[in-house]
Amino acid sequence: TAMQPPICPRRLLPLSLGLFQGALLLFFALFITYDEPSAHAEDASLVANQLYGIFPLFQDIQVMLVVGLGLLLTFLPCYGLSVLTHNFLLLNFSTQWALALQGLLHHFHHGQVHLDLRNLLIAEFAAVTVLISVGAVLGRTSPCQLLVVAACEIPVYLASEWVIVTHLGVLDVGGTITIHVFSCYFGLGVSKALFGAARRPVHPKETPTPRSDLMSLVGTLILWVFWPSFVAVLCQPGDAQHRAILNTILAMSASTVTTVVASSLTEKDGKLSAGHLQNGSLAGGVAIGAVADMAVPPVAALALGSLSAVACVLGFRFLTPLLARKLALQDQCGIHNLHGLPGILGAAASAVAILVASEDTSGSRFSQMSAAGGNASEASGEQWGNRGAGGQVLCQVAGLAVALGGSLLAGLLTGAVLRLPCLARPPEWLCFNDSLYFKIQDQAECPEPCGTAEEGALALKERV
Amino acid sequence: TAMQPPICPRRLLPLSLGLFQGALLLFFALFITYDEPSAHAEDASLVANQLYGIFPLFQDIQVMLVVGLGLLLTFLPCYGLSVLTHNFLLLNFSTQWALALQGLLHHFHHGQVHLDLRNLLIAEFAAVTVLISVGAVLGRTSPCQLLVVAACEIPVYLASEWVIVTHLGVLDVGGTITIHVFSCYFGLGVSKALFGAARRPVHPKETPTPRSDLMSLVGTLILWVFWPSFVAVLCQPGDAQHRAILNTILAMSASTVTTVVASSLTEKDGKLSAGHLQNGSLAGGVAIGAVADMAVPPVAALALGSLSAVACVLGFRFLTPLLARKLALQDQCGIHNLHGLPGILGAAASAVAILVASEDTSGSRFSQMSAAGGNASEASGEQWGNRGAGGQVLCQVAGLAVALGGSLLAGLLTGAVLRLPCLARPPEWLCFNDSLYFKIQDQAECPEPCGTAEEGALALKERV
Amino acid sequence: TAMQPPICPRRLLPLSLGLFQGALLLFFALFITYDEPSAHAEDASLVANQLYGIFPLFQDIQVMLVVGLGLLLTFLPCYGLSVLTHNFLLLNFSTQWALALQGLLHHFHHGQVHLDLRNLLIAEFAAVTVLISVGAVLGRTSPCQLLVVAACEIPVYLASEWVIVTHLGVLDVGGTITIHVFSCYFGLGVSKALFGAARRPVHPKETPTPRSDLMSLVGTLILWVFWPSFVAVLCQPGDAQHRAILNTILAMSASTVTTVVASSLTEKDGKLSAGHLQNGSLAGGVAIGAVADMAVPPVAALALGSLSAVACVLGFRFLTPLLARKLALQDQCGIHNLHGLPGILGAAASAVAILVASEDTSGSRFSQMSAAGGNASEASGEQWGNRGAGGQVLCQVAGLAVALGGSLLAGLLTGAVLRLPCLARPPEWLCFNDSLYFKIQDQAECPEPCGTAEEGALALKERV
Repeated sequence: TAMQPPICPRRLLPLSLGLFQGALLLFFALFITYDEPSAHAEDASLVANQLYGIFPLFQDIQVMLVVGLGLLLTFLPCYGLSVLTHNFLLLNFSTQWALALQGLLHHFHHGQVHLDLRNLLIAEFAAVTVLISVGAVLGRTSPCQLLVVAACEIPVYLASEWVIVTHLGVLDVGGTITIHVFSCYFGLGVSKALFGAARRPVHPKETPTPRSDLMSLVGTLILWVFWPSFVAVLCQPGDAQHRAILNTILAMSASTVTTVVASSLTEKDGKLSAGHLQNGSLAGGVAIGAVADMAVPPVAALALGSLSAVACVLGFRFLTPLLARKLALQDQCGIHNLHGLPGILGAAASAVAILVASEDTSGSRFSQMSAAGGNASEASGEQWGNRGAGGQVLCQVAGLAVALGGSLLAGLLTGAVLRLPCLARPPEWLCFNDSLYFKIQDQAECPEPCGTAEEGALALKERV
Repeated sequence: TAMQPPICPRRLLPLSLGLFQGALLLFFALFITYDEPSAHAEDASLVANQLYGIFPLFQDIQVMLVVGLGLLLTFLPCYGLSVLTHNFLLLNFSTQWALALQGLLHHFHHGQVHLDLRNLLIAEFAAVTVLISVGAVLGRTSPCQLLVVAACEIPVYLASEWVIVTHLGVLDVGGTITIHVFSCYFGLGVSKALFGAARRPVHPKETPTPRSDLMSLVGTLILWVFWPSFVAVLCQPGDAQHRAILNTILAMSASTVTTVVASSLTEKDGKLSAGHLQNGSLAGGVAIGAVADMAVPPVAALALGSLSAVACVLGFRFLTPLLARKLALQDQCGIHNLHGLPGILGAAASAVAILVASEDTSGSRFSQMSAAGGNASEASGEQWGNRGAGGQVLCQVAGLAVALGGSLLAGLLTGAVLRLPCLARPPEWLCFNDSLYFKIQDQAECPEPCGTAEEGALALKERV
Repeated sequence: TAMQPPICPRRLLPLSLGLFQGALLLFFALFITYDEPSAHAEDASLVANQLYGIFPLFQDIQVMLVVGLGLLLTFLPCYGLSVLTHNFLLLNFSTQWALALQGLLHHFHHGQVHLDLRNLLIAEFAAVTVLISVGAVLGRTSPCQLLVVAACEIPVYLASEWVIVTHLGVLDVGGTITIHVFSCYFGLGVSKALFGAARRPVHPKETPTPRSDLMSLVGTLILWVFWPSFVAVLCQPGDAQHRAILNTILAMSASTVTTVVASSLTEKDGKLSAGHLQNGSLAGGVAIGAVADMAVPPVAALALGSLSAVACVLGFRFLTPLLARKLALQDQCGIHNLHGLPGILGAAASAVAILVASEDTSGSRFSQMSAAGGNASEASGEQWGNRGAGGQVLCQVAGLAVALGGSLLAGLLTGAVLRLPCLARPPEWLCFNDSLYFKIQDQAECPEPCGTAEEGALALKERV
């Protein structure tokens, strides 16, 4: 019958995942241990204090990625179970894969690898790039394809992050360049190479309903609340971390208000678009990452938040349709508007902040800013000290270019791999539909108010 | 056509919001900076420790206000997107407005203003009053009207809080009097002045459905879980904070059990009302605020929680209908039952607690209680020491009177302003409807199970 | 009419609950106080630090129990309000009841009882057993019956926990044996004794819909995120706690990936089952509890997580239907698959871990492991030191046997009590239906997309 799902290698997903899990077990058995226990009482108290400092932030980030991001993606009304599950699976798979790769690299340099919460956090940051990238192809890809994206993106990310942060010494504590810009253009590359030049009509199940928009908005709110933890978790404890938290809160607050303004002004009857709100209110958090721990004044955070919200809303209103028309580029979740444009804005802001800080001749401020390098390690702060503000600005620009160009290229290659027929891309008429991946018991496939009898009959016909 | 929304100045909301955001940027550029960085390593560790102490609680409160309160208000089945958005927008607008006003006041006294997490928290507390107040007029007001409420309420709150806490020295660490009682009567004043003496029939979209009640109950549960953080965040660290947390948990636990009892007893067939549960389980948290950090025995917290739940349920069952009948007072969310009655109970409890503590002649207990003044600053504790228990009780009563009378008066004035035609109050037949404020794509406007064909036809007719 | 609910003593629930609440007030008034305030500034800082260490974890656990577990149970599409409410009520009732019993026991030994956050946490752990147990009889029991379960289970749990942890010195920091195995077999005993040998056809409202599965999955995700806090909260601060957190995260991550593999392989068309995901991803967290703080290598946590997920999925696929067929055993939520099987696996793993650790002759590792006894108090670690690894393994096995046998017996007795007619078990045709316990306003009783007119008519007929 027509309902026969077209995924021929039904067993590909479980077998490949199972194989991966087995290999991971072997790798962990050989190479990964926990740190030696701290021998002294003082150390124990120190460990406990470090744990109390980082663990609540770590939990906040877990809530963001597992619950918040998952819910944000449920705006597709009949695809909620699938997006939640795929997001959850990808997060776990990518984190494990990143842990293994990190461990392997570390092992060749230092032997045995000691696992701690910080390693796990860094692996999770790598996984975030995958979760963002797949937003561009959401609903039109099989789980096998998503796993291939993850398998390819993680090593590219680790390399890119090494070049940008360790080699170039780019200051980017909140991952604006290394995470957001990188994952956005990787995802767009995948989408372009996967879907080619075909233009698709709007799928009937692609349109959000008020109820799915509501769930998605709840996801946005959860992300919004915990975003400061995401930006600040890797900052130097103390002033820099405090400043990063405050800057993020200010930027996101300005984003929210500005999104309402921009969304209302760009629609001709002054109504709001739920999609704008779901994304625009987070744009400030994306942009602030590169400057969050620098000694910028509060007004800069507010202005950056406002600007990025405007860029995000205008992107949804004009740029996404333009790219779809001119380049046949599909971007299902609008990741270019939430991660691409605000990310580039944030990178530009970091360059400006460095220039402005260097014009303040007061040495104290300069050195303080260097010290605020956060996860860019002490070294990068000193590099800047050595190379001067102009050099650091060049580095920020070079980092942005690496993140943007490298990811686009790698994404295009990954997208080409995704066209392999064995990966079982779902046919267009079965896209955006939970029933393709889930055992759904009865006729109530689509969790929507199938109001009138006509609609019900229609839905019934579609299913036959 | 009839669907043409009657809001003539479609651009009023975005233009006024945009103007506000611009003015805020200017103000921040001129007056607000971050604190100087702590120079020494010791200070850095101190800053980090303070941050670890306050930041998790701050995040809890953000979750409460953004996610919990937003969801609690989604009991209106076709108005979920609007309430979530309005709540979110109002929180951000009000916090920014409160920050600016605080900064201005502080600036005239001390020059440059240093922003930190504590300032932000206090501004957010001011915003809470707005979020509570608008509950009285939920669904029948335009976003412009809500912004006017926020614009008026924040300065009145700051003045009232100054009088009550700083001038009168009222002990109220959890905001029972300053936040809950104040915002409740402000909201009732607004409702009375806005809607006048008109009595409205029940709107068809005003009735919760099981699904919207479920979402709302989830909001209640989130508020319930994080409420102890709200009450304890401004306490003195140490014993007082520990006690405040325990008292709040006990009071809310008793509230929950008692709400089930009271709700079941007041309905003639012994069933529960979802509305009672959504509100009654939180009543204990409202009432305990004024005594949470005092040296009251655990049984007092339990008893206060039980009592306030009874008051809340009886309020819903008898008082709200009575007020609607006699005074034509509309209270959409029943804020009088959740914030008004338990708030007054809490204020009374604080007076009793002070009297009882003073009768324990043991000086140690007395001084310990003085020291537990929490955000009421050291000064107020000493004031009490000077003025004696009787004086302090008078102060508590005077504080309650100021909060109640001042807010009612200010609310009435604000409500009169809301009658300005340019603020575009929605007409009755478009109330409680997301489609008035949101671009909604298709015919499935109302996220409800429009079960039978008859219902669907009805819904269709209503929309034409 | 037929709709007349068959619960004759409509007032039994509120009256018995009210009586309990009154007795609790009396008991608290007589026996429970807060601790004396810490006199010195140093102590205050110590108290504050302890609070900052435990309070965020406590809040995480509250979110798990109130929001996460509540949502997980909403997979019954027309029973969401009831499960959220019953879960919430049972948590509060059981915690208060456990506090009172603990207090009573403590009172007879030491006089006045000092309440602190740790006491509250331990009482809440007792309440968790009730919340798990009632999963076996979800939807077919009245609230009165659930309260009786709570009233009976709490004292049995306290006795069993005393025997297992204090007397036998079993190492079980995360409650694998004491909480999960215990509550599972208690619940199965209740179910068996209550429902007897009757086999029931599938109830039409028993089948999850995509939407109810989505809500339930959100609950799983919340539980998944915060589970490490549950396991680690009672560990020794420092290394043991750090290790417990990491082990739990690893185990649950492996569970998630393995669940997808196993679920996909056991279904013949390779689709996933939402029920498998909702439970299997948590199975690792159940199993890891008994070994979380031991010095096991990371690979052991991964392997245990994978194994328990396989056991859980196979349990759902084969064991639950088998038990239903052979023993007429009903297990509505599949608690045997989520708590029973992984719990037994975890207990076995703890025995293996102890044996392996003892074969490492390095004394340091041994003593370190002893020191990692967590909530099993220092004493138990030393007991192990005295009794040797073999003795400790025997203790673990004995503990498992006590938890399993004792709870099954007590559960059967409790289930027999539940058959008392005055407890008002709902008749089969009214099961799984919110309208039995909630005032529901209109005809939209069931929050489901009652798509076609036929369905609507059907639903209507059922209601008459």
